[in-house]
Amino acid sequence: MHEQPSGNFFEDFRLGQVIRHPTPRTITLGDVAVYNAIFGPRFAVQSADTFAQAIGYPRSPIDDLLVFHIVFGKTVPDISLNAVANLGYADCRFLRPVYPGDTLSAASEVIGLRENSNRKTGIVYVRSRGFNQDGGEVLDYVRWVMVRKRDESAAAPGDHVPKLPQQVDPLNLGSACPPIDSAAYDTTLSGSPRKFTDYEIGEKIDHLAGVTVEHAEHMMATRLYQNTARIHFDHFTESKGRFGQRLIYGGHAISLARALSFNGIANAFHVSAINGGRHVNPLFAGSTVFAWSEILDRAELPKRSDVGALRLRTVATKDRPCADFPYKKNDGAYEDAVILDLDYWAVLPR
Amino acid sequence: MHEQPSGNFFEDFRLGQVIRHPTPRTITLGDVAVYNAIFGPRFAVQSADTFAQAIGYPRSPIDDLLVFHIVFGKTVPDISLNAVANLGYADCRFLRPVYPGDTLSAASEVIGLRENSNRKTGIVYVRSRGFNQDGGEVLDYVRWVMVRKRDESAAAPGDHVPKLPQQVDPLNLGSACPPIDSAAYDTTLSGSPRKFTDYEIGEKIDHLAGVTVEHAEHMMATRLYQNTARIHFDHFTESKGRFGQRLIYGGHAISLARALSFNGIANAFHVSAINGGRHVNPLFAGSTVFAWSEILDRAELPKRSDVGALRLRTVATKDRPCADFPYKKNDGAYEDAVILDLDYWAVLPR
Amino acid sequence: MHEQPSGNFFEDFRLGQVIRHPTPRTITLGDVAVYNAIFGPRFAVQSADTFAQAIGYPRSPIDDLLVFHIVFGKTVPDISLNAVANLGYADCRFLRPVYPGDTLSAASEVIGLRENSNRKTGIVYVRSRGFNQDGGEVLDYVRWVMVRKRDESAAAPGDHVPKLPQQVDPLNLGSACPPIDSAAYDTTLSGSPRKFTDYEIGEKIDHLAGVTVEHAEHMMATRLYQNTARIHFDHFTESKGRFGQRLIYGGHAISLARALSFNGIANAFHVSAINGGRHVNPLFAGSTVFAWSEILDRAELPKRSDVGALRLRTVATKDRPCADFPYKKNDGAYEDAVILDLDYWAVLPR
Repeated sequence: MHEQPSGNFFEDFRLGQVIRHPTPRTITLGDVAVYNAIFGPRFAVQSADTFAQAIGYPRSPIDDLLVFHIVFGKTVPDISLNAVANLGYADCRFLRPVYPGDTLSAASEVIGLRENSNRKTGIVYVRSRGFNQDGGEVLDYVRWVMVRKRDESAAAPGDHVPKLPQQVDPLNLGSACPPIDSAAYDTTLSGSPRKFTDYEIGEKIDHLAGVTVEHAEHMMATRLYQNTARIHFDHFTESKGRFGQRLIYGGHAISLARALSFNGIANAFHVSAINGGRHVNPLFAGSTVFAWSEILDRAELPKRSDVGALRLRTVATKDRPCADFPYKKNDGAYEDAVILDLDYWAVLPR
Repeated sequence: MHEQPSGNFFEDFRLGQVIRHPTPRTITLGDVAVYNAIFGPRFAVQSADTFAQAIGYPRSPIDDLLVFHIVFGKTVPDISLNAVANLGYADCRFLRPVYPGDTLSAASEVIGLRENSNRKTGIVYVRSRGFNQDGGEVLDYVRWVMVRKRDESAAAPGDHVPKLPQQVDPLNLGSACPPIDSAAYDTTLSGSPRKFTDYEIGEKIDHLAGVTVEHAEHMMATRLYQNTARIHFDHFTESKGRFGQRLIYGGHAISLARALSFNGIANAFHVSAINGGRHVNPLFAGSTVFAWSEILDRAELPKRSDVGALRLRTVATKDRPCADFPYKKNDGAYEDAVILDLDYWAVLPR
Repeated sequence: MHEQPSGNFFEDFRLGQVIRHPTPRTITLGDVAVYNAIFGPRFAVQSADTFAQAIGYPRSPIDDLLVFHIVFGKTVPDISLNAVANLGYADCRFLRPVYPGDTLSAASEVIGLRENSNRKTGIVYVRSRGFNQDGGEVLDYVRWVMVRKRDESAAAPGDHVPKLPQQVDPLNLGSACPPIDSAAYDTTLSGSPRKFTDYEIGEKIDHLAGVTVEHAEHMMATRLYQNTARIHFDHFTESKGRFGQRLIYGGHAISLARALSFNGIANAFHVSAINGGRHVNPLFAGSTVFAWSEILDRAELPKRSDVGALRLRTVATKDRPCADFPYKKNDGAYEDAVILDLDYWAVLPR
């Protein structure tokens, strides 16, 4: 299925098909620096080798979301180059830590296909996996995208909608986090005294700051991941397209919101799983992104007294500060300013 | 005093208080590359390991200003998140070289407090220190900022203005510069034959080139330093604020001017101390920065025949070339185009 | 000839003169990451150490064009700071692989000088060479530029036009490519099954995607190379100049086109030589760059059964998709949308 620079269309996919994606990628300290310059994360574990080593890591691990974006980027040329919309993520688990110098590759399995009634498009469900140079799985997630058909008269290539979990079971969390020496976790250096047990379910936190997105930033980030979706890069074509302009990669909002969430959840040093994520409104350059979070749940991890996991809903908005936690309207639809609704498990020291 | 994502206000500070700042930071070759891409410095010692090793460094050290910005950035969330203005720097000394892989942390001591007569704001003086992973001090400087009060009726937390030196004494320069083999310092590779003794006090040098600043660049640089001052990043809020737009971090102009100063002072490979610095007019994206320098003084360093120090005034302007050395008007006020007046000691080979 | 921050003028050059250029530069993984973020190349050999090692490299080499830009950048302050136009390249050969940690320096020899009949300008031909830290030559090329005279009445410094090859002889290709284990070259990971013998002379390939260029991107890239040509950076001056705006460094279009060419020539992992290159129309920020290529020739390399070389013409356009391969008009002049006509040898596995 390779050597299709024009990408796969709905009828090109087959249920059970496994696609090894091109272009393995060695992640380096250079990538970390570019990522930091674009998003400005401040979590101490990823920021300082000394901090990471004090608590039990061999060195600072790569930011989980950078791992996600790089694996995701590899899937784009094969899965979503002809996508109309990225519909959702589920069952995303970070399985092993990734360090500078590790080389990531990716493969996807087609686990669902459903043609839309208009017969012009169909939904493709894939389970994508990222691997390190030793073949160890570092990331596993499902996403589903609406993909155009090349030929409307082509037969649907299958009809199956997979059953997906509403959330990642806490029993399956934590494998990417080595045992932590919580006593050595310095909460002055990390920026907050609040640990796992200091958060209450239902608590809402405004992340306070806003950050305006520039074209050069989102394109540099998205190219860093070798994500080739043209809608992010080609103003000439998009100026005549659906939005009249380039659309920012949805993952950009995730990384911005995660960096902002340091204001209030500074010790949530590791994203262990993403239960689901929706890009509910498009983000364009020139907008300012704000974010807030709600503590949805609190879970102990199996056999671990060092860390626990908070289930968080992080909501990002555009041009709308979040002191009043904007989310949905009375009719259940998202407020227009909301761009991201992300449900994930983050690990904190106990 | 941590876990205040909304920052400290004037009445939160206490004389003598010591604040250890969050988020230690390992500086890497990646950070150097991003810094180089944004500022384009050409000093040979920092550019090439081979050049650095030839004269006595173990490898290229980190650019002094990158060290300054990273230490400065750490102090922002605690010291100046609610600052109205950054008023000045003094007694800034670079004490040890920093290399890729070193981890920097920072602490500040409150050394002065004076409430303004309007009782709405006060001036906070801090001595900030940067440390490497071994606890060795790499940077030490004083800055003072005007900070808002949360509550105008709150009592002033102290009343003391520290005495600060007009300049760093040359006796205190040079500890961040290892012994240099001046004979091995290749002035063809470094870009200029002019060494320490070739500059005369009073000489003025136009740095010739101009560089236009883009939003993506100054935000990426400022995030690289984990500097969280919102006025640099949040167009939504700042469009309704004092300037109607994002303000560029003052340190950005310092790094631009330093990079430009290679044209004329190419062998000033090390900033040893900053006597004082003032951001006399704001800089915004879209402006073009020019710079010129005057040799204010020339100092031998104690017990060192390898290097000497020039005291330089480097002036940066916006949208104003510097062939005629723009500075102050007849009434003593700065010309409108002047944005930076920086007084520092730079080390050159003899 | 150094210590001329205002650059050399036509009458400053002498036939046979050799100029060692300032500022050696250690290339790092950080530089690679910035380059990747700006251009988004996906060639597997440069992307993953594991892929490179599997076929015989010690690790991923530095992208050939990054090497070119860094060597080129060094020549700018001495050769082309006062250039009216960069007229062409010829006989450009990549001679040794370059790896992260290598330090590059450069020297140029003046091999031709011809004053223009208006006596205001002249053409300077230089052979420029890049060297690694061991003195090994990594790059060798000729370029010619039209340079202003400082003084129109000055005598012409020489009158000689060198004879240059129309193309690099295939006998001289390949020294920067170690012996490759073609059997270990995984065409699934590399993104295409098409190897050397799968391309036919005369075949034309649309590279499909377009990428819009932002000011922050081209300035960051060009500064990364320490290229100081002011026309790329100084909006204040250029707004009153020839184009009314900053001109993008010609090499930027080369790197963009090369990255786009992955769509269709994914296994052309190494640029071995550039036969010639012309920037036929200026590129400005805001334009979207597209590209297409034609297979001009196919050559076996001396004593090598592992790889072969394709001679490619890659044409880049602005705001003009390339499905119909835009090139020249009936009168032989380039179409207005064409910005780059590049003729080079790329190495592919057999």
